[in-house]
Amino acid sequence: GTGTNNDLYINQAIVFIEDAIQYRSINHRVDSKSLWLYRWYYSRTCQWLLSLTITIILALAFIEKPSSLTVTSDVRYRLPAWNPPCGLTESIELLCFLVFMADVSVKSYLIGWEEFWKNRWLMAYILTLIVSLTDWIVSLSFFCTENVRIRRILRPFFLLQNSSMMKKTLKSINSTLPEMASVVLLLAVHLSLFTMFAMLLFARTKDGQQDKEWVGYFRNLPDSLTSLLVLLTTANNPDVMIPAYSKNRAYSVFFILFTVLGNLFLMNLLTAIIYNQFRGYLLKSVQSSLFRRRLGIRAAFEVLSSLKETPANAQQSYVSVGALLQVLQKVEMDSRCKQAITRSLKMCSCDQLSAAQFQKLFEELDKDAIKQHPPSPEYQSHFMQKMQFAFGHPYFGYLGNVVALANIVSICVVLVMDADKQPSERDDFFLGAINCFFILYYLLEMLLKIVALGLKRYLSYPSNRFDGLLTVILLVLEIATFAVYGFPHPGWRPEFMGLLSLWDMVRLVNMLIVFRFLRIIPNMKFMALVVTTLLDLVKNLRAFAGILVVVFYAFAITGIMLFKGAVVPLGNTRATSTRLLFCHFRVQLVLYLKEKCDFVALFGHFQAEVICCLLHLLSVNLICRWAKIYFVAWWLISSVIWVNLFVALLLENFIHKWDRRCHREPLSDIEYQRTVELMFRDVLEEPTEEELMEKLHQHPHLQLCR
Amino acid sequence: GTGTNNDLYINQAIVFIEDAIQYRSINHRVDSKSLWLYRWYYSRTCQWLLSLTITIILALAFIEKPSSLTVTSDVRYRLPAWNPPCGLTESIELLCFLVFMADVSVKSYLIGWEEFWKNRWLMAYILTLIVSLTDWIVSLSFFCTENVRIRRILRPFFLLQNSSMMKKTLKSINSTLPEMASVVLLLAVHLSLFTMFAMLLFARTKDGQQDKEWVGYFRNLPDSLTSLLVLLTTANNPDVMIPAYSKNRAYSVFFILFTVLGNLFLMNLLTAIIYNQFRGYLLKSVQSSLFRRRLGIRAAFEVLSSLKETPANAQQSYVSVGALLQVLQKVEMDSRCKQAITRSLKMCSCDQLSAAQFQKLFEELDKDAIKQHPPSPEYQSHFMQKMQFAFGHPYFGYLGNVVALANIVSICVVLVMDADKQPSERDDFFLGAINCFFILYYLLEMLLKIVALGLKRYLSYPSNRFDGLLTVILLVLEIATFAVYGFPHPGWRPEFMGLLSLWDMVRLVNMLIVFRFLRIIPNMKFMALVVTTLLDLVKNLRAFAGILVVVFYAFAITGIMLFKGAVVPLGNTRATSTRLLFCHFRVQLVLYLKEKCDFVALFGHFQAEVICCLLHLLSVNLICRWAKIYFVAWWLISSVIWVNLFVALLLENFIHKWDRRCHREPLSDIEYQRTVELMFRDVLEEPTEEELMEKLHQHPHLQLCR
Repeated sequence: GTGTNNDLYINQAIVFIEDAIQYRSINHRVDSKSLWLYRWYYSRTCQWLLSLTITIILALAFIEKPSSLTVTSDVRYRLPAWNPPCGLTESIELLCFLVFMADVSVKSYLIGWEEFWKNRWLMAYILTLIVSLTDWIVSLSFFCTENVRIRRILRPFFLLQNSSMMKKTLKSINSTLPEMASVVLLLAVHLSLFTMFAMLLFARTKDGQQDKEWVGYFRNLPDSLTSLLVLLTTANNPDVMIPAYSKNRAYSVFFILFTVLGNLFLMNLLTAIIYNQFRGYLLKSVQSSLFRRRLGIRAAFEVLSSLKETPANAQQSYVSVGALLQVLQKVEMDSRCKQAITRSLKMCSCDQLSAAQFQKLFEELDKDAIKQHPPSPEYQSHFMQKMQFAFGHPYFGYLGNVVALANIVSICVVLVMDADKQPSERDDFFLGAINCFFILYYLLEMLLKIVALGLKRYLSYPSNRFDGLLTVILLVLEIATFAVYGFPHPGWRPEFMGLLSLWDMVRLVNMLIVFRFLRIIPNMKFMALVVTTLLDLVKNLRAFAGILVVVFYAFAITGIMLFKGAVVPLGNTRATSTRLLFCHFRVQLVLYLKEKCDFVALFGHFQAEVICCLLHLLSVNLICRWAKIYFVAWWLISSVIWVNLFVALLLENFIHKWDRRCHREPLSDIEYQRTVELMFRDVLEEPTEEELMEKLHQHPHLQLCR
Repeated sequence: GTGTNNDLYINQAIVFIEDAIQYRSINHRVDSKSLWLYRWYYSRTCQWLLSLTITIILALAFIEKPSSLTVTSDVRYRLPAWNPPCGLTESIELLCFLVFMADVSVKSYLIGWEEFWKNRWLMAYILTLIVSLTDWIVSLSFFCTENVRIRRILRPFFLLQNSSMMKKTLKSINSTLPEMASVVLLLAVHLSLFTMFAMLLFARTKDGQQDKEWVGYFRNLPDSLTSLLVLLTTANNPDVMIPAYSKNRAYSVFFILFTVLGNLFLMNLLTAIIYNQFRGYLLKSVQSSLFRRRLGIRAAFEVLSSLKETPANAQQSYVSVGALLQVLQKVEMDSRCKQAITRSLKMCSCDQLSAAQFQKLFEELDKDAIKQHPPSPEYQSHFMQKMQFAFGHPYFGYLGNVVALANIVSICVVLVMDADKQPSERDDFFLGAINCFFILYYLLEMLLKIVALGLKRYLSYPSNRFDGLLTVILLVLEIATFAVYGFPHPGWRPEFMGLLSLWDMVRLVNMLIVFRFLRIIPNMKFMALVVTTLLDLVKNLRAFAGILVVVFYAFAITGIMLFKGAVVPLGNTRATSTRLLFCHFRVQLVLYLKEKCDFVALFGHFQAEVICCLLHLLSVNLICRWAKIYFVAWWLISSVIWVNLFVALLLENFIHKWDRRCHREPLSDIEYQRTVELMFRDVLEEPTEEELMEKLHQHPHLQLCR
């Protein structure tokens, strides 16, 4: 009947508007039951459950067998890690797989069969699930004794497929690959030519004294190649050159030429290429988000205009205000936006909305959220008004900053004075006393500010929330310290007790004060710009970080599988090889990595230099060939490519920010909640009516009347 | 009289046109004698003499006393360096100073007194000369025994002031300084906060076993600061973290946070800021060059139009063609341009030239020089024609590339086979034989190509010149080898003799073949793009490189003065300090640097990593506080700032090239000789008539009639 039809249209409009708000694609089934399923699937609970499942399956690696989560990483002191019994992690895994299977079925059903066959990500999802389940069955039938577990390497895929931003970023990286490959090829040519050259230059001679260079670095082809590859990472930079240089200074020309060409030119060319490819990346992604939003709104308009209650008009379609109000009530959206839209609907005297008016109503979604701070309390008493003026004044805030600086300086002085004293000689009275004094001041400052501004207004500023939280923590810690050790007096020396003694806590208090000092940043103009750029960057970087996590996870698991059993006990290695003394700590690190490849170690060392250090070890032949390939691949991906991507993104963000800085007038009291979309608003192109309608007519499930 | 006046105008026009060609300023004296002096000063001989003087005074450091130019840099084997007698280098210096004094007087006279007082560079030049001469007199009166020689640090100034490009670049760098300073300040805040944090975190405990971290890196404030500064350069990256990490994994969070914030964010922000400032740098510099050129041409037009022979015209001024032809004959310029201008003058039927026509004539200067290769010889014989077709065909060139590749591969195979053999076991017959074969092929290839293309056409291609030169060198070396050792036979083993034996030369031959392989690059599309970008970059980088040389020179001389007498004999240091074993080679390097600070070592190690390695040593307290400050300053300037400038320039160049690549059609046979000016031609703005005339009226010496 007409009623059911109308209900369907209303529901469709609700879902389309929600799609628009979330920048989702509208290409899904639109019948009543599917719509219900769709809303349920994208409900917060459901998505939260899915994220939780992904977190759980990824976190499993920390407690699974070859990994170890212990406090110390030192093999000598470490207690044996807890080994979960066979079947425990496996049953958790099975639960996760069941959730993923439900997820993939719902997703496939919702987009429909035709779309399903075009969607490679869904196919890969199903394939991954099949492989994982097979591997799981194999694992259980061997009672968890088998070594190769493919499903672990596949796990990060579940994280990847769940984020549309990550998929988009991956596509973008993918399109840069051909040009990156060219530069990498050029690097390879550079490397191989210079390797040959080096082998001819540093050939073995009769005089054993003279060919240190040959013995150390260019003994044979793989050695030479490794030496120069490591030189490209600049890890063995002076070492590799010294024997030849001390023989004849002219040899340095070879190394300088190699480094300048390889490091300065080719490596930076990679940065240039990646930046060039990513220049438009942010803009393009924001542009496509805008298109999705406009499309969702337009689709909602189209379905609402086919409602029977609307008088059929051949020329132009209209939507009744009543229907829209009905839809708005049921849509899940930010309450501020909803109120604003309802208000403008009521202010508009018309009864019917054209497409343009409809679109215009929803532009509220794109607008800056202007944050209004609640007003200060109005006091009757003259004294209170004076207090309010005094302690609500910015100068009071500056005084607080000066006190925080004084606190930092005094801690610094104490640290310098105590630096060389034995712990038994040290007198902690002074540190305790100044802590006590400053914490009292902070408490007073907080209370006075609350009185002056009122609690609500005080809490509406993020800097105050940060301050207040730290002050409360400091106070609690201080009171606890006094309760245990009594008040500070000369010769006061709180003793250690338990895992985290209260004295540790007092030190913690001092550290927190260091952080409190950061509140001066917004007061300095350039620093504020830099910090906001960095914060923006962090928002935009989430997709990149996700991909990095995926790559790391896969690498860590591969590392565990590759280097299991390749462990040489630490003592033996040191005894047999005199070379180890050369860089003892680094060797220890590599041994740890080989032994456990644990996550903290991997995450902790993701920057270029650690990998360089590992590669440096390769040059002294400590690890086998597999390890070489593994580490070179790791270096290329995590250090060369990822760091360059990061630099490209930073350049893009900073230059946009910098260009805009001159245009925008800083508004003193109103804080804008800026999003990436807003940053680009003045350069974005609005999609045309034709583009929107063409896209709508291509919708696989929605049959528009006209 | 009118004749003298006319001669003066003609001479002025000549000089203005020459100024326009060389992009020089026209603000100099314009009377007859000054013009003669000006042309003499900017003549090739004079400028060449000036450059020679600058080179000599800079090169003096290589033979002066504390420096040493020996073959080996190893203290044990090195012969004592030659010490020039007192007075030798000093008299050379005096000669140089005399030339500089002449230079500064001529320059000051030519721009006139008024301009002189505004020109800070000239003032600084005179000041430098006065200080240098005073220092020279002091030096001689002490019979060269004094240690502090200020004039040596001032020497690079002479290089700086002689290049207008370098002065312009320096100005540009100077304008970036405030923003760089902000980031450096941010880095300093970051560093000091984390230092305090680290000192609180890694305090001394009672358990001596547990505070390795404290002993090694955070013993007191300077130590902690150095440790973290070095961590910022990533030189001690895993080492500094290992003791804490093996105690408790959670400590790694501190180091990761520090590195991510400092290295990844703040350091790259510096790149972003510098790139942002330099984005318009190239364009702006080319734009101002264009303005100078147009201004010179316009000035020439104005003086020529005041020639008495021209009929006075109130409305518009004209220049007679005859006068221009007279000027053109005497102007020193590229003969191709001169011919082209004369030709178009003759083709133009008019007798008088307006300003626009005059300007248009000289646009020939901005045009691409189209290089026409001379034609191939035309042979009568049918056989010769066939040969010409076969060996002039590109496929013959490809065959040559394949043969070069085969040569490389065969050398590679021999190297791999000989890698582990003792020199006494090795048989050089095979290498000798393949060398012989391939060199014969290269000779044949060269001769056939010369026959097919004719000698002139053959030599007109740079790739052929490169090929031909290498082939001739290879041939000479091979003949010399045969003359000494006879033809290769099994068991052939040329012996060593003298400094560079002939057998060394055979190895050199093989190295040259490696270079010959590079001729394949222009055949690959993307590689050609990359290589041309790099070559362009080298052109644009000359000014930067010059500034780098200036900075290095000053640093090297300061280093010599600072670390003279601070040398610890190598043996002793090794015996007393067990830490030296830790990175023995690096210590050696630092000792060399401290001992000699010689140029090769400095130039050889200008990349980030070596300085990092030096800073790494700082963290183990090997060098005194002065050295710390010295090296930190060096690291900041040469590694952080210069490398970032380089990256900025590379990005700028590459992105321009890349954008243009799509627009331009590659022309097969015509090679453009591209200059920076041409690269930007389509974005440059032509200066307007008003701007030019305003500038002309501001000329301090030229009184225009109107």
